[in-house]
Amino acid sequence: MSVTLSDIEAARHTIAGQVLHTPTFPAPRLSALTGAEVYVKYENLQVTNSFKERGARAKLASLSPAERARGVIAMSAGNHAQAVAYHAAGLGISATIVMPVTTPFVKVAATRAYGARVVLDGESVHEAHIRAEAEAREHGLIWVHPYDDLHVIAGQGTIALEMLEDVPDLDWLVIPVGGGGLISGVAVAAKAIKPGIGIVGVESARYPSTWNALHGDQRPAGGATLAEGIAVKTVGTLTLPIIRALVGDIILVDEEYIERAVNAYLTLQKAMAEGAGAAGLAAMLAKPQRFAGSKVGLVLSGGNIDPRILASIMMRELERESRIISFRLTIADRPGMLGHIATMLGRLDANILGVEHRRLFLDVPAKGASLDVTVETRDAVHADEILQALRAEGFAPARISTGDVME
Amino acid sequence: MSVTLSDIEAARHTIAGQVLHTPTFPAPRLSALTGAEVYVKYENLQVTNSFKERGARAKLASLSPAERARGVIAMSAGNHAQAVAYHAAGLGISATIVMPVTTPFVKVAATRAYGARVVLDGESVHEAHIRAEAEAREHGLIWVHPYDDLHVIAGQGTIALEMLEDVPDLDWLVIPVGGGGLISGVAVAAKAIKPGIGIVGVESARYPSTWNALHGDQRPAGGATLAEGIAVKTVGTLTLPIIRALVGDIILVDEEYIERAVNAYLTLQKAMAEGAGAAGLAAMLAKPQRFAGSKVGLVLSGGNIDPRILASIMMRELERESRIISFRLTIADRPGMLGHIATMLGRLDANILGVEHRRLFLDVPAKGASLDVTVETRDAVHADEILQALRAEGFAPARISTGDVME
Repeated sequence: MSVTLSDIEAARHTIAGQVLHTPTFPAPRLSALTGAEVYVKYENLQVTNSFKERGARAKLASLSPAERARGVIAMSAGNHAQAVAYHAAGLGISATIVMPVTTPFVKVAATRAYGARVVLDGESVHEAHIRAEAEAREHGLIWVHPYDDLHVIAGQGTIALEMLEDVPDLDWLVIPVGGGGLISGVAVAAKAIKPGIGIVGVESARYPSTWNALHGDQRPAGGATLAEGIAVKTVGTLTLPIIRALVGDIILVDEEYIERAVNAYLTLQKAMAEGAGAAGLAAMLAKPQRFAGSKVGLVLSGGNIDPRILASIMMRELERESRIISFRLTIADRPGMLGHIATMLGRLDANILGVEHRRLFLDVPAKGASLDVTVETRDAVHADEILQALRAEGFAPARISTGDVME
Repeated sequence: MSVTLSDIEAARHTIAGQVLHTPTFPAPRLSALTGAEVYVKYENLQVTNSFKERGARAKLASLSPAERARGVIAMSAGNHAQAVAYHAAGLGISATIVMPVTTPFVKVAATRAYGARVVLDGESVHEAHIRAEAEAREHGLIWVHPYDDLHVIAGQGTIALEMLEDVPDLDWLVIPVGGGGLISGVAVAAKAIKPGIGIVGVESARYPSTWNALHGDQRPAGGATLAEGIAVKTVGTLTLPIIRALVGDIILVDEEYIERAVNAYLTLQKAMAEGAGAAGLAAMLAKPQRFAGSKVGLVLSGGNIDPRILASIMMRELERESRIISFRLTIADRPGMLGHIATMLGRLDANILGVEHRRLFLDVPAKGASLDVTVETRDAVHADEILQALRAEGFAPARISTGDVME
């Protein structure tokens, strides 16, 4: 192996006191949901809200005084950017971060807030990468790769040391895979400490790069995913051999499971997980039989999710559970009808969230109106009671979709 | 003092391994926001997502075999209910929880899921309390009070032992106050270990019960608050003397600051806080000069916030920051106008979230249409650019409120 347990132990010594030892806690509600005994390591509690600080700190601290004086550069639209910016500032190293021009402003602002020089260039990650390489050459900057670097891999591996110290009897570690820095570091450390432990990787089904590499498969990679943190098309040259040697399997997860996992962390664990950070739980939801009855360690690897997307996921889940329902009534367009219906809904304890009342011209024979109502209910049973009661009064409520929060 | 440091140390021994030792971590982003050096203890990571487990476990574990056999009863619409239900189950004690009929179904379901018998009765907490007392008498059940109990106070005090062990040099602890169980336990422990530490309590300005008791004031208590977990009208007979002796001051916080604090935890710390759980941070936002430059320990005491309310807070904050803006245009009602405007917004990088196009009959002289548009922007500067560009094209966009998420 290119990285060894002693490299990882050395990295742990290097980052001690600079990167938080986050807790690994039992999650009985996730256990009930999945049928396994689930433990979660909360890497979203790191200052920049992801595990990326471990590798970034280990790498930056490894630089010689001459290298530090030259400054560092990284290309990232995400967690790696903030991790490098934060720890470079802590070590007094000047940092340049190249981000695609499409990077959300909050991420740019957060990276700048740590004192990094941010260069916005390129429509895609690929174009930004080309610009970053040019910058590095021109200014003689030290490259900090997000995953294909031995110090970075060793830094990420410190997660496994902490997890197995805090919960020694884990049977499985289920780990998100993008470029593979996290899983390769974790696999080296965990397998050295506890050879019987199983390491499973998780990729978004839309970016099956490591799956393809391991299985000689050619599945297409691309498209939008909630797990943009692991949407990587290129596997690392250092990480892939480690994964091939030590990781038992890759599970590909569909968007639906990633969304459910983000929501489960939020509603059951009161924890914010970005899509990539929830990938391990998504794999358990997709393949519960794989882990039933065993002790599973998950890394909630990052919490940087856009608030608007989070709000949308929560609302969709409430709709899925019929805790929010919308329905359309066609009513006679005469005074008092809206009042009659609203009073009825009130008696039924349905909390009205929105009403749209429209007079119709073509849809019905004459003098009709359409009423779209969105109400909050206690649960699906209550939702049914409300619809039944409307039917009993002679209305014919048709369920419609509330849709996304703002759409 | 009715409760001593050794009581709290004994409680710690009792609950060890049954209640999590949650982390107290530095929060540099909250430090930047408030001008103090902020540390947060994440009690939302407890299994039932609040500190209430500490007191509940300490109390239940103190019962004799004969008392345990009788069973326990508690009255709570919130975190105390789940804490008692969960730990009673763990100790093999049968638990009855009385909740007002208005309790949200998810809370009822969560409490039942831990095996408790839930009795729904009473429109208010007061009425539910009367029913609970009747139940207790009738069935000979042991009462588990949410705060006015020496074992409960000692249990809550274990928080201070952990915090001062993890971060010994805190200058202040800023603690939410409802019935006063948390702050009185914390104050006894903290002042015994470190007499120079300052303890400040925080109440919702709408429920200034302890403030009134301490200052001989008569401010009214009542109304809706985001911090329903500390919306208490009756001060404890055991807790008040401790607070009077050891707590320096009470800060009353308005709803606005509670909402901002919930949002700051969410967006800056990626942590879910219910209103009461964010009260300490709310006090720092309301009175930053009180804590500037000192080391402040906050207890994120609970994370049980309704997802719909959370989504609404997030959307309101985005609107406040002009990251979502809505505006109304009055346009000529001819083919191509909507296409023209949508194309323009696209060129300006304004992401369209919603459009409402309405032909007008009375509002404008003739053949006008009103167009309400909601767009996502990068930030306030970008929002201004978008509005300026529309004006330059001869439109007169009028800002309108997007309102709450669903309203």
